[in-house]
Amino acid sequence: MKISISTPFLLIFVYLFLAEISFPQQSVGKYTIVIHGGAGFIDPKIDEAVKDKYLNSLTGALSLGKGILENGGTSSYAVEQVVRFLEDDSLFNAGKGAVFTSAGINEMDASIMDGRDLSSGAVTGVTTIKNPISLAKLVMDSTVHVLLAGSGAEEFGKQMGVEIVDPKYFRVEKRYREWKMKMKKNDEGTVGCVALDTYGNIAAATSTGGLTGKMPGRIGDSPLVNAGTYANNNTCGVSGTGVGELFIKNAIAYKVSVLMEYNDQSLQEAVEGLIYKLLPESTAGIIAVDGEGNFALEFNTPSMTRGVATSDGVFEVKIWK
Amino acid sequence: MKISISTPFLLIFVYLFLAEISFPQQSVGKYTIVIHGGAGFIDPKIDEAVKDKYLNSLTGALSLGKGILENGGTSSYAVEQVVRFLEDDSLFNAGKGAVFTSAGINEMDASIMDGRDLSSGAVTGVTTIKNPISLAKLVMDSTVHVLLAGSGAEEFGKQMGVEIVDPKYFRVEKRYREWKMKMKKNDEGTVGCVALDTYGNIAAATSTGGLTGKMPGRIGDSPLVNAGTYANNNTCGVSGTGVGELFIKNAIAYKVSVLMEYNDQSLQEAVEGLIYKLLPESTAGIIAVDGEGNFALEFNTPSMTRGVATSDGVFEVKIWK
Repeated sequence: MKISISTPFLLIFVYLFLAEISFPQQSVGKYTIVIHGGAGFIDPKIDEAVKDKYLNSLTGALSLGKGILENGGTSSYAVEQVVRFLEDDSLFNAGKGAVFTSAGINEMDASIMDGRDLSSGAVTGVTTIKNPISLAKLVMDSTVHVLLAGSGAEEFGKQMGVEIVDPKYFRVEKRYREWKMKMKKNDEGTVGCVALDTYGNIAAATSTGGLTGKMPGRIGDSPLVNAGTYANNNTCGVSGTGVGELFIKNAIAYKVSVLMEYNDQSLQEAVEGLIYKLLPESTAGIIAVDGEGNFALEFNTPSMTRGVATSDGVFEVKIWK
Repeated sequence: MKISISTPFLLIFVYLFLAEISFPQQSVGKYTIVIHGGAGFIDPKIDEAVKDKYLNSLTGALSLGKGILENGGTSSYAVEQVVRFLEDDSLFNAGKGAVFTSAGINEMDASIMDGRDLSSGAVTGVTTIKNPISLAKLVMDSTVHVLLAGSGAEEFGKQMGVEIVDPKYFRVEKRYREWKMKMKKNDEGTVGCVALDTYGNIAAATSTGGLTGKMPGRIGDSPLVNAGTYANNNTCGVSGTGVGELFIKNAIAYKVSVLMEYNDQSLQEAVEGLIYKLLPESTAGIIAVDGEGNFALEFNTPSMTRGVATSDGVFEVKIWK
């Protein structure tokens, strides 16, 4: 008897076999997830009701991520879903709550990185994509590219069937008034998430509407892996918030990894050195997780909305120090 | 007698005084400049006439840069002018000779970085700017941002009076035929320049038309400092050419600096490690200069059009090993 298998089918079998052996995905049970809703200048005297809004939203996002991880979800799925949740909340400067450019429109940026193999995806300057982070994940998973901009990114989104919305969807009245009044210091609210999953894989994601009144076309650190987002299973995962240009010039997200890999620093030491020594006061926040599940959440601004949950039972959301 | 100076004038005087004392610009006389016109697949059997075209163009670019440096020009001015020269030559995939996207248009990217203070400027996805590198330099010198994209970048260029051309200017028939025929391996020809000036400052610049048939909106490594371009007086300046996505994920340009700063490698060791060990064969080339004027020009493709000139009298242009 002669068995004949056509070449395409043979290739598929070989691929499935290799995919299986290269990613054994054995659960070790331990996980850590950290989130941020931006470093900034929230007045400690805000109404209890507003404070509760922040804490409730952070709790919702963190619970979602924790649930995914403890049920065996991957870190790249968890960080995408958590950032989506925060994008849908108009409290934060990402997705729904994105701030306005000087031209009065909303241009959004997002990036995601998978620490298993450094694969990365990002979009910048999108104006009609309901969830930029999910489009970034599609760039990572379904293209040979890392970063897509503007109408090219949106066209790709349409082809992939992501949810497209009218730009009016992003016109949240509070943000619009801020823009009209050219208010300063309202660029806070970038969102991010870093997770170590139960398979030992780290992923990081960041999403933002950028700076209120930024020049049209300005790209900050959030869609740039190495600058605002980084993940590497050998070291750590990082998401940044603050003055994007400082994150770009100093390759801040990747630098946390560099200081661990080449300078024998712990995650906490690396993050503290960057936030309190390298970067000027009132400019930045970093959240990060290492391969052991250690986490760091540091900021040199008055506030950073943030949270952390671990398999050891930690579950905490905070706004100030 | 009472002397009254209005506040704005006083501020200008203070500024000029500080500018003078912070940048003493004392010449030390030594300089090094390296250039590339892309790593790629040029057949060693090409006509002598074509070979001469490449070598003549490289010689012209290198002479321009050498002349600027030996007459006391700064490295950031030299790298901008050299890259402009290469952008104006349709032999290379940058400016005039930019390749076509899958949508049949030319989208160009460029970046520049000044190693004196890590200040950086870049543009991506511009279609009407005759010299993208000069617009990148304006972003560095005249905005608070690092990276501007698409129409926002072009609007800024108009305001700053840079030369705007009809997109047809970039329609070089050879490139257009390549696009029509969906030829592979014709993404080579990114250009770059790194220089150490006689004041001890390092600058780097890179400019490209990206990949033939790339997805519209795709951003590669060339407009991203840390990925395709890096400069830091404490370590080195770098310009990369090759598969941009690999340069982004691995933060290649910055990594040369990291390996020198944190891993005690020489410039040559760092560049060789990345080109021959980390990056896959046939994907990349790097040119780099350190603070001592040492230089490295390495590539794992069959060819890299390149050149080097130093104050010690080296002047060399080459295509193959």
